[in-house]
This record gives sequence, structure tokens and C-alpha cells, in this order.
Amino acid sequence: MSSSIHFPPCTVVLAYSGGLDTSCILVWLKEEGYDVITYLANIGQVEDFDAAKKKAESLGAKKVFIEDLRAEFVEEFIWPSVQASAIYEDRYLLGTSVARPCIARRQIQIARQEGAQYVSHGATGKGNDQIRFELTCYALYPEVQIIAPWRIPEFYNRFVGRKDLMEYAEKHGIPVPVTPKAPWSMDANLMHISYESGILENPKSHAPADLYLMTKNPEDAPNSPDVLEIEFKKGVPIKVTHVKEGKSKDTPLDIFSYLNEMGGRHGVGRIDIVENRFIGMKSRGIYETPGGTILYHAHLDIETFTMDREVRRIKQGLGVKFAEMLYNGFWYSPECEFVRHCIDKSQESVEGKVQLSVFKGQVYILGRESPKSLYNEELVSMDVQGDYDPCDASGFIKINAVRFVRLSLPGQLPASPGI
Amino acid sequence: MSSSIHFPPCTVVLAYSGGLDTSCILVWLKEEGYDVITYLANIGQVEDFDAAKKKAESLGAKKVFIEDLRAEFVEEFIWPSVQASAIYEDRYLLGTSVARPCIARRQIQIARQEGAQYVSHGATGKGNDQIRFELTCYALYPEVQIIAPWRIPEFYNRFVGRKDLMEYAEKHGIPVPVTPKAPWSMDANLMHISYESGILENPKSHAPADLYLMTKNPEDAPNSPDVLEIEFKKGVPIKVTHVKEGKSKDTPLDIFSYLNEMGGRHGVGRIDIVENRFIGMKSRGIYETPGGTILYHAHLDIETFTMDREVRRIKQGLGVKFAEMLYNGFWYSPECEFVRHCIDKSQESVEGKVQLSVFKGQVYILGRESPKSLYNEELVSMDVQGDYDPCDASGFIKINAVRFVRLSLPGQLPASPGI
Amino acid sequence: MSSSIHFPPCTVVLAYSGGLDTSCILVWLKEEGYDVITYLANIGQVEDFDAAKKKAESLGAKKVFIEDLRAEFVEEFIWPSVQASAIYEDRYLLGTSVARPCIARRQIQIARQEGAQYVSHGATGKGNDQIRFELTCYALYPEVQIIAPWRIPEFYNRFVGRKDLMEYAEKHGIPVPVTPKAPWSMDANLMHISYESGILENPKSHAPADLYLMTKNPEDAPNSPDVLEIEFKKGVPIKVTHVKEGKSKDTPLDIFSYLNEMGGRHGVGRIDIVENRFIGMKSRGIYETPGGTILYHAHLDIETFTMDREVRRIKQGLGVKFAEMLYNGFWYSPECEFVRHCIDKSQESVEGKVQLSVFKGQVYILGRESPKSLYNEELVSMDVQGDYDPCDASGFIKINAVRFVRLSLPGQLPASPGI
Amino acid sequence: MSSSIHFPPCTVVLAYSGGLDTSCILVWLKEEGYDVITYLANIGQVEDFDAAKKKAESLGAKKVFIEDLRAEFVEEFIWPSVQASAIYEDRYLLGTSVARPCIARRQIQIARQEGAQYVSHGATGKGNDQIRFELTCYALYPEVQIIAPWRIPEFYNRFVGRKDLMEYAEKHGIPVPVTPKAPWSMDANLMHISYESGILENPKSHAPADLYLMTKNPEDAPNSPDVLEIEFKKGVPIKVTHVKEGKSKDTPLDIFSYLNEMGGRHGVGRIDIVENRFIGMKSRGIYETPGGTILYHAHLDIETFTMDREVRRIKQGLGVKFAEMLYNGFWYSPECEFVRHCIDKSQESVEGKVQLSVFKGQVYILGRESPKSLYNEELVSMDVQGDYDPCDASGFIKINAVRFVRLSLPGQLPASPGI
Repeated sequence: MSSSIHFPPCTVVLAYSGGLDTSCILVWLKEEGYDVITYLANIGQVEDFDAAKKKAESLGAKKVFIEDLRAEFVEEFIWPSVQASAIYEDRYLLGTSVARPCIARRQIQIARQEGAQYVSHGATGKGNDQIRFELTCYALYPEVQIIAPWRIPEFYNRFVGRKDLMEYAEKHGIPVPVTPKAPWSMDANLMHISYESGILENPKSHAPADLYLMTKNPEDAPNSPDVLEIEFKKGVPIKVTHVKEGKSKDTPLDIFSYLNEMGGRHGVGRIDIVENRFIGMKSRGIYETPGGTILYHAHLDIETFTMDREVRRIKQGLGVKFAEMLYNGFWYSPECEFVRHCIDKSQESVEGKVQLSVFKGQVYILGRESPKSLYNEELVSMDVQGDYDPCDASGFIKINAVRFVRLSLPGQLPASPGI
Repeated sequence: MSSSIHFPPCTVVLAYSGGLDTSCILVWLKEEGYDVITYLANIGQVEDFDAAKKKAESLGAKKVFIEDLRAEFVEEFIWPSVQASAIYEDRYLLGTSVARPCIARRQIQIARQEGAQYVSHGATGKGNDQIRFELTCYALYPEVQIIAPWRIPEFYNRFVGRKDLMEYAEKHGIPVPVTPKAPWSMDANLMHISYESGILENPKSHAPADLYLMTKNPEDAPNSPDVLEIEFKKGVPIKVTHVKEGKSKDTPLDIFSYLNEMGGRHGVGRIDIVENRFIGMKSRGIYETPGGTILYHAHLDIETFTMDREVRRIKQGLGVKFAEMLYNGFWYSPECEFVRHCIDKSQESVEGKVQLSVFKGQVYILGRESPKSLYNEELVSMDVQGDYDPCDASGFIKINAVRFVRLSLPGQLPASPGI
Repeated sequence: MSSSIHFPPCTVVLAYSGGLDTSCILVWLKEEGYDVITYLANIGQVEDFDAAKKKAESLGAKKVFIEDLRAEFVEEFIWPSVQASAIYEDRYLLGTSVARPCIARRQIQIARQEGAQYVSHGATGKGNDQIRFELTCYALYPEVQIIAPWRIPEFYNRFVGRKDLMEYAEKHGIPVPVTPKAPWSMDANLMHISYESGILENPKSHAPADLYLMTKNPEDAPNSPDVLEIEFKKGVPIKVTHVKEGKSKDTPLDIFSYLNEMGGRHGVGRIDIVENRFIGMKSRGIYETPGGTILYHAHLDIETFTMDREVRRIKQGLGVKFAEMLYNGFWYSPECEFVRHCIDKSQESVEGKVQLSVFKGQVYILGRESPKSLYNEELVSMDVQGDYDPCDASGFIKINAVRFVRLSLPGQLPASPGI
Repeated sequence: MSSSIHFPPCTVVLAYSGGLDTSCILVWLKEEGYDVITYLANIGQVEDFDAAKKKAESLGAKKVFIEDLRAEFVEEFIWPSVQASAIYEDRYLLGTSVARPCIARRQIQIARQEGAQYVSHGATGKGNDQIRFELTCYALYPEVQIIAPWRIPEFYNRFVGRKDLMEYAEKHGIPVPVTPKAPWSMDANLMHISYESGILENPKSHAPADLYLMTKNPEDAPNSPDVLEIEFKKGVPIKVTHVKEGKSKDTPLDIFSYLNEMGGRHGVGRIDIVENRFIGMKSRGIYETPGGTILYHAHLDIETFTMDREVRRIKQGLGVKFAEMLYNGFWYSPECEFVRHCIDKSQESVEGKVQLSVFKGQVYILGRESPKSLYNEELVSMDVQGDYDPCDASGFIKINAVRFVRLSLPGQLPASPGI
């Protein structure tokens, strides 16, 4: 692409954050001869959207789209992740990953609607987000051309450090941030805030106490728990009730926002991990996912209560795969569509109510009930024999041991010390 | 077996707890004509072992074995579970399951050494423990005969309720417990205490606050965290240090006991779950696993830090299988031996130090370091380009999207709403 | 149950084959006080159904059901297995396993309709079939009582060998077979014939050449191949055409029967294996599955042609699980219903035509075409560059190698000899 | 790199085949200023190695390496694949894939020994081989620079078709092939020959009968089988015997060559498939793998005979993963080293003898025996009850059905038609 000016100018839809980086990219794209449409998705981050709009216009954006995607983000992206118990490498609840296909989908819709053949973003060349954005773009708009300035030598060689961006901004009338940048980068949305880079790159250093914006420090959290009841249907929450206050929420966005509030108040959902990027390197990330953490635990509980053991075992394997696809950016892939379909099927009977408390960073499951429960109180009871014949267990055990017989001949004994 | 008196009397090794049930079984076995050897394993439960010994002798046990298995329980059973990140159905750390093969192994050793062809236990006919005990017995001593009174009609029809046991006890001079039985049953060892049955059988009822014996109620726990550093080698802890106090432990039993103390003090490791028994029914269990929970988190952290991504993915799948085997009682099976070997191999480079804090029921990872780290601070840095060429990412993404091309023809577009 | 005579007599539905064993069981059940309804399923085995009917009536069956299940066997049981590429332990196409739930389902329907609370079968106590029958019964009719004489001591201790059965038969007017029994047992249906036991129990002995009834000895098969074209839709065959003769079949039963004829003529689908029974022992089995083998290969071909790589990878894993469930008797289990649903979903685009030849025991795929093909001739062509940019591959490879970098430091080199 | 001449000239080790393509690359690299060392691996392909040597020298190669890798190819690469039952997408025995790391490893050894920082190959930009070569190179020699001319625009734009190569060859004194090129490309080694491209790119076209070089057309193969006995130890063949002729082979290379001869004579191991490349596209390939196919079947048989069922189930999953790694080029990756270690462990008891016949394209297993057999003839016998108590099976089945009970309440019945 480089320095060639296009006639008539090509249109590019730029994922615009209002920050220094994407403001510079906006101007740079114009310099490169593009008509630039900016697009800023509201996925629940704290942002002055009006200011961002004005800023984009003042920098010469041909059109400015500010899109409120919060409801569809919860319903179409977070909810399937809850159903899947999606967790990456046993710890990360995928708050950033799950937002990317939601954001990129609308970007592509705008590009198609505006007749733009180009899209652009400010994601770096070492991260996961570039992949998540672009795989979504290619899947939904195969002919699209993607401009990723942080992978274009003439861009990244020109803007080696923040100082270069600042100079460029000043020269081109881009408002320069007055507050100093935090010594890390962050990404926020309704589901979580992630923190990485800068001083966090040393995996041994502890995160500073004032880092977290979404959750209270557990040490400063209330000294008594809040008890919530979450009602599920088909594996997604349909209602949350504060047991004492009687207050309840019942739309997806309200439910999730309320769980964020409750989780945030009690410091729930903070983790500090090293994870494996799709690109092959390990990185250190700190995440706070208050509402998502509560839902993860509550869903797990109602699922185990209502789902057959062996179905769940298969579904668990599919969930692990789903989490990898989501992390790696393959939401809009044939395999992810397939797996989502299967997981959705598995959730048909996942319904009922879970009571839990949130307190000092922790979620405690307290009890559950369900019209679809597979829990059979009489069958399991120690006090009631019921239909169950204990003698059957003898046969069951003996048949399970048949395989061992031949294995116990001399010389084949398990080599454990002491035997 | 039933009412026939054997001449000369056969010898049975009874897993004896000192409680009402196994005391009655002891006497009943004698009535049935057996010579009874009692065996009580010390795996870290709170118990008056001397009193139990005397009681068994007074009830006519031919021999009494009290065996301190704590060190081997930690080294040979808990440590491999830590390496495997063994967790059943995403939540249960398997504290009961992992003790069973340890206990049964020694029981079999005693049976062989004493020339006994029979072993007996007091596990119920609906539970997992009968399976765990007996599969171990059959694997290590295929010719053994197992007497499980709670599955023998003439026994369980005679002792339908606790009242029957009490009457039998009184009649046979078995000391009857003076304190009333808790309205639930519990199983304790070094790794955890489990609570189930009785009033806990209603899955909706909250557990009473005074249930827990191993961990403090988080609400009553100290208001400031303790910070620990755990050092790992080959995937197992070799040292734990209290960072502020400078105190440290470095033998397996001491390390684990100290982690129990720290975790217990801060209320770490309580869960309330419904789980799927091997026998096919769902049951509700409440567990407290203070030290095990700390180790689970610390090990996960150092493992991800030092293990290749794809190796870990395979190891994770093996760990899930290992947890199922362990839960179902297959520790001494060919497949479990195989999986333990593979997991052990995967842990060769899992070494380094993890810093963490325990506070109000929660474990927080703070930082980690390792001579075997695969984390490359320069490679991942946002500020340093290093050897990494961002342009490569473009090719990587495009090739990953090749599969989508054909899928995007008309009629094959993902059917997500809004597109 | 045993010797007690029931008043009024209970009704039992007996799966009756017309042979010596189940004829004796019929009479024995009557002796035990049952009203016996016999049920014989036509699932494609060679059998004189009229003679069997008369025999059952003459032996005192209260009612006799002869049910032609061939069409539903193909459509509802074989077709899903084809979709799943169901193969047990990499070799066995599950011809016996897949028939069992089909047979037992009708037996249960008859039992419910006739108000019978008992069902009975002549399967042995060491095999898989008892499990497959009974799990189906319990799943579809949980209150059912199952009478499995070969697991009832008073039956199996009375009929220790074939001689005992013969004597009993003579005594009770049961017609005794005049031809000597083959020195092995066999099970036949539309999908396959299996041979086991007797002289086949020695795993080293070669199977006699005259064993096979469904397929020609490849040495005696025609010296030129037959070329067939099979058309699939949603993963199941909808038409088979003999390319030279122009002859074609297009109903499930006709298609499968014709493939059996063609495969049989050319000796296709013979295997001699040792397999692992669910009950824990290894057994030796010899199978001939002519039509099923052709379909297995043809379906595999059209599936790979039309299914996305990653979807297929997941589906392959589900297929392995499905085969295990099928083998173990869990067709009517929640997990098998779930997996069938998922596999069915994966087959939506599996359509097109496969040409193949059958010759001397072998199936050769010759070519394939499909309107839903994901094969892109231009993309893959060595002569056309198309949209594909070879430079992208460089980035793809380099990013895939990022993980190796840190691993190549001194001391971490792969320890392969010579490097 | 392009047109810059390096002083002093850099050295590149070129994987040289002696054909037109790599001869042109040799000369082109010299033009580009490199000192070129050619390297030709003998992995069992039919080739005039002397002529290739002379040709390379005459074209200006600074040094010429002809390396006989056949023995290490069999022992270090084919044998582990046999142990793993490595098969890609259920059909392809990976004959090309398994040769690549073997070839590239030596190339890297030569590069290191000769102080060359560059390696080059003639693999195309759309295929798998480029990845397999290069991942091996990066893993074993991370600092290496790879020159892949078919991915360098100035090369591939200059040589668009074969005509361009011919002209270049004539101009630079490169001997031009006199026989016309086959209308497909092939790759041959000891394990197999693959055919693809050209007229084979149409997936519907049948392969011409004269394509195959390694196997006889089954129609022309002998009319009577050869019977072989293969002896295994630790999962690899240690001896093959022609049962009638008494002839035997017992070194890896001899064993494998002899199996190729036998399989080739009988037309064993031909497949025609569409497969999924790592690069994301589907391609059509035709393969003949005579010896490898025999070994695949024989190993499967002895493995099932000697390996515990559940161990094998886990090993099977690892084998599927291994096959994918192998296909995708990850032989020298941490995960593949790990999986090979695990699979190797699983093979410890895989020993014994398998008798089989090869005939008209097919391999028939006839019988097997082993000192490590887990097959228990008495246990499985229909005529002997042995230790096995059939009553145990009743309990086993009932406990397995416990999960179904709750599922059979009204409204939860399986929705299969007819029930």
C-alpha cells in the first residue's frame, strides 16, 4: 500500500478508540490517501464517547460510528461462553477474546454498508487481538483488505516509541493526553479489564495495589457477604436476585451488569497469570472479571446438577476446545460454529436456581434446586435403601477388576515401593 | 460366607476406624467365625490412636495394627495428584479418593504378611469408597476375598438403622459413643475433610456454619494476608517459606502440613458441590482442602510458566483422565500407572518459585520466577521488537484464514443474527 | 425368582432364536411358572422364520412375534453408524453391537404392549450382548425385570454343557438339531456375521477357509472388479449405481443389501481380530461385513471432501466415543443421544458421489465429486497461483516456530542421536 | 536477500534432488552470490546418485553431499510411527511426512559442520513439505536463515511455468531432461511413493493404471497369497519370516525392504484420498505404501493382543495427535518429543508374533501369539466357567443403568421413532 495516493480515494473503516495510537493512525491513513471512517464500539468500557466522536471528526474522519453493542455482546458472545464454561488454560475467562468477534463483526457490517474494502485497527504485531480481529474479518468478508499499521514497516519504523507518536500528534493537531500514561496497558469491556505490558512484563513483580479499576481490593471489601440467587434456563442466567434485599434483574445486560457490581464490590475475579499466546510466546496478564467469575461458578453448579455425568464429560472436552478457539480468534470458524451448536444442545436441561455468596474475593456456592435435577435424594440417601440393591455393587466392582487379573502375575506387579 | 463357622478360623484384616460401625463389624466377623486383625491407618486425621488400639483389643482383635502412613500419603499419592493438577468435574480436589489406595495398599501388605486371605471394610454399598478400596485390593492381591458387610443382606438387613447398631453394641460390650452423632458423616485426612449425608442430602440446604473443622470461617479469618513462597522441582513442592516471618519447611509432610495450617487459618479451600459418583448417582458433598487448594494454584502457575504450550495441552487432557481414574478407584490400574508415568515425564522442567498470598478464603498468585522459565521477556515486550518480525504475523493470520475462503460463498455465511 | 410359581403367572417376553438354547429356555421358563411370549426379530439373518414360529408354538409359547426390523435396522441404526464412521478399536465395524438396541427396543415395545414385566434372553454371562440388551431394556423400560438364565446358578449349573441341553430337549419334546453344531458360534444379521468361541478361542489358530458364509473367499472371487458409484446426502447413502451395468438402488434397505451382494461377491470385509470386551476380557472374533466395509470407505471419502478439516477432527473424536458407547451397549444413553445429535449436525454438508471398485477383498476409491465440496482446485493447483500469496507461508512457518526458540538454548536441544 | 552479492560469499546448503527445479535453484543461488553446497539424501528412492553428484559439481556446487540415511530413516522415524499406529485422517500412513525431519536433520548437521548459515530447498509455497523442512530447521538450528525460492517473488515471478525453467536451464548449461515430465508430480522414498498435481488435481478423475511404481496392479498380482510371520518386540518388528520359504530378515532396513517387496508384489497399500493440508486447503493425493501398510495391520494386531484396553484407549488418542504433528511438520517439537516418549512407554509389552497373508492388495491377519499376551483363553472360554462368576455381570449391568433411572421419567424418554 505504502505511499501511493489512491484515486478516487479508497475507504477504510478504522477501529478507533479515541486514544493517541488510533488517532495517529487515523491521520496517517489520511496521509496515505484513504478516506477514513472511524468506528468505536461501546462494549461496556468507561469512555467519553461524545468526546471521541468529536475528536475523530476534528481529525478528519469522513464518518464516525459509535455503536452500542453491549446487549448483543452479552447475549451472543458472553452467554455462549458461560454455557461452555469457557476458560483458557484452566484460569483465564477470556474477557478480551470474547469481545473481539463482536467488535469486528460490526466493523465488517459498517464496511459492507459503506462500500469500504479496507478495515484497519491499532492492535500490535505480537498480540492475540490482531488475529482475533482479522480472522473475524476474513470469515465474514473474505475480499476485505486489512491495514494493520503496527505490522507495516514504514509505520512501525517511524513510530518506534511513544515519543514519536507524541511528536506526530503535536505536528498534526492531534490532542495529546495530559495525564501520564500508566506504566502498563489495559483493555476494558463489560466482562473484564486486562492489564499487561510495561512494569507487568517482569513476571516476578507483584501487581501494584492501585491497578484494579473494576473490583475492590478484597482487603477493603465489605465485612459481610451478599447472598445472590441466580436462575438459569438453557444454561444461561435469566434472573438474579439479591436474597436479602429482594432486588432482582432479568434482562441479560442488567443481569450481567448487576453481577459485575456485586462481584466488584467484593473484589471477586482477580487473577495474575502467565498465559500462552496463539503466536507462540508466553505473556503475563492480570485480569479482573467480577460478574464472569460469579457466573462461571454458578453455571458449573447448576450444570453438574442437571446434566448426565457422561454427557458432561463430553461437553467438558468440547468446552476446552471452544476456549482455545475463542482465545485464538476462531469464533467465526466452521469448527467453532459446530462446537457452539453442540454445547447449546447440551444445555437444554441446564435450568434451576443457585444460591451463592460473594465475599472478600471469593464466590461460595450455598445450595441449588432445579425442576430438571438429576439428583435423586432417595437414591443417594444413606438412610434409605430404595430401589438400589447394594449387592449389585459387588458385581460391578468385580467386573471392573477383571482386567487386572492377568496383570497381577509375578513380574507384573505394580512397581510401587513397599509392595 | 454367611453363618458357616470356618475351621481352622480364617483370618480377616479389617480396616478399623474405632467408631461404632467398624466395632460392630469386628464383633460380627468374630461371630461369623473369623479371626480378626484390625488395621487403622494414620493418614493425618484427628484420632485417639491409642484408645482405638485398646478398644480393638478389648473387642477381641487377634492383632492390632496402627500404621503411620502420613509421609507416604503425601509423597506417593498427594504429590502425583499435584503434578497432575488432578481435579474431578472441575471442582473437587479428590482428598478422599487419593487416600484410599494408600490405605488399602498397607491393608493388603498386612494381609499378605499375616497370611490372611480375607479383608474387610465398613464402606457403604452406595459410595465410591468401596470401589476404591476393593479395586486396589484386587489389583495388588488378586486372590483376596473381600467382606463388605454393608453389601451382605444378612448384615445390612440386621443393622437397618443406627439404633440396631447401638443395641448390638450394648449387647456385645462395645463402648457406645456418648456424644450424639453429627447429622452428617465426615471423612478426614491430611488432605481434606469431606462432609455428606444426613441434613446435607438436601442439595438446596446451606451447610451449617459450624460444620468445618479444618478451616476457619473466612469471615473470622485474619484481616491481613500471609504471603508464602513455594518452591517447586519436577512439579512438586520442595520448600515453602513464609515471606515475612522467614520461616520455612522442606520435607513433604512438613510442607503439606504447614500449607494446611496457613490455608486453614485463612479459610482457604471450602467447596459445596454436587458430584457424579462412579456408581451412577449424583451426591452432594462439602469439602475443605486448605493446603491442597494452595498447591493446586501454585503448581498451575509454575507449570504454565515452564511448560511448552502444546505439551501442557496434552498433559491437561491426561490430567483430566487421571482425575477420573483416581475418583473411580483405579489408582492401581495399568492405565493409571501409564498416565502417571507420562505426567511425571511432563514435569521434568516444572521448577521455580511462586509467591502467593492467602486471605479470607482465597489464594492470590503474586509472581513467579524459574531457571527453566519459557517466558521470554524480550520476545513478548511491547517496547522491544527483538528478533520477532511483525510481518510474519500477517502471513500467519492469512494462512489460518485459508480454510474460510470457500466457506464464505453465498449461502454458507455464518448464520449469526445481524450479519 | 427361582422355583417359586407365580399366581397369576407372570408374562415374560423371550428373545427367541429357534435354536436349542432358547428353546430350552422357553420350556424352562414355563417350568418356572411364567407365561412365555416369544419374539424373533428379522434383522436380515438367514432363518426359517415360519419353522421358528411353529416350533415356539409347539413348545407352548403363549404368543409368538416374528418382526421384520430390517428397514428400521438400516435406517435408524446402521445409517447413524455410517455417519459416525463407527469403528471399534480401529478395526471392528460393530455389526453385532448395532443390532442389539434395535432388537431390544422392539422386545420392550412388545413387553409394554402385552403388559409383560419380564423379558428374557439367551445371551451368555461373559459376553457383551447381555449388556447391550439389558441396558437398552433398562433405558426404555426402567421397571422391567430381566431374566438372564445363563447368569442364574440353578440354570447354568443344570446346563453345564451342550449334552445337558440335549438331554433336557429330548425329555421335553424339544426338537433336537440333527446336523452337528459348528465348532464355533456365530451371529448373523444384515450387517455382518461374527464367528467366535470353540476352535477360534485359540488366537493363534487360523480360521478355517469354509467358515465364511457372507463373503466369497477372495481367492475365488471374480478376476475383474465391479465399479460402483455411491451417492450420499447428509452423510448417508441415497443411491448406489453399478457403473457398467447402469443398475441402481435407492432405498436404504435395497442399497445396503446390494452393497452386501457386491461386497460378498468380491470377498470384501473380512477381519480376524482380538478385541476388548466391556466386561474386561480380551476375545477373538472373526467378522465379515461386506456392505458395511464398502460404506465405511466411501463415506470417509466423501466426508473428508466436504467437511472442514477442524470440524472433522472434532467429529472424529466424537466418532471414537460413539463406537465405544455402541460396543458397550449404551445406544440408549443420554451421552449417546447427545453424540448422535452432534454427529448428525456435522453431516449436513456431507453429500456427493464416490466412485469405487471392489475386487478380491479390497475396496478402492477411484474419485469423487460434490456440490458441497470444500476442495478448491484452483487454490491447490501447482500451476495456478490464484489468490494465494506464497509469502504468507513464510510468516506462517516462522510464527509456528516461535515456541521453539527458547527451547533451543544449550542444554535444551532435542536429544536425538546424531544431533 | 535478492540481488545483493555478499562478500565474502555466504554459504548455503541446498537440498538437491538432481532434477530440473533444484538444478536451476543451484545456479540461481550462485547468481545471487552464494557459495552452494548440495545435499542429496538417499532415503530409499530410486535415483542415480552418482549422476546427481556429477551434475551438481558440474553446475558449480562447492561441495556435494550424498548421504545414505536409509537405516536411520527406518529405525528413528518409521519405527516410532509404527509404534504410534500413525495414520492421518484415518487413511494416510504419512510416508512423505516422516521422511522430512530425517532429511532436514542431516541438512542442518551439514550446515553446522560446514559453517553455513543458510539452507535452501525446492519445496513449493502451497505444500506441507516447506513447513516440515523448515520447522525442523528452526528447531535444530534456530539462527538458520532459510531460502525458499518458490516463496521469493523475484524467483517465482521469473519462473512462472516449466518453460521458464527450461529456458533458464539451456541458457546456463543445465542438462535438460529428455523424457517428457509425467503429468503429475511424485515423491518417493523407502516408505512410499506419493502422486499429486497435474491431471490428478481433478478429484473426480481416476488415477491412470500405469501410475504406480512400487506396487503391482492387484489384478496382475499373483493368484496365491504369501504368508508372513512378523515378530515384534517393544512395538517394533525384529524379524519377518516367509512361512513357506523359511526365509527371514532381522535388521530394520532388511525387514522393511522385504515387506516392501512382499507388499509390492501383491499390490498392497494403494490409496486415493483427498486430505487436508496444514496450510488450510484440501488436496488430492495417491499413495502406495506396501511395507508400511503390512506393518500397520500387524502392529495393530499384536498391540491389541498385549496391551490393556484402557492403556490402549489413551495411547490411541496420543497416536492421533502424533499423526497430526507428524503431518504438520512438528517432529522436532516439545510436544512431539513428549508424545513419542509416552507412546514408547506404552509399547514395552507389545511383543509377539503375528501371522498374516498378503494377497491382491489386501493384508489378512491370520493369528497371533505372545509371551506378554493379555488374552486369557480360559477366562474367555464359553466352555469353561473358570474363576469368573456370571452373577457379577448382573450387578455390573444394573449399576451401569443407575444413571438411566431418572432419565426415564415421562417426558424424558428417548425420542426415537417407534417408542
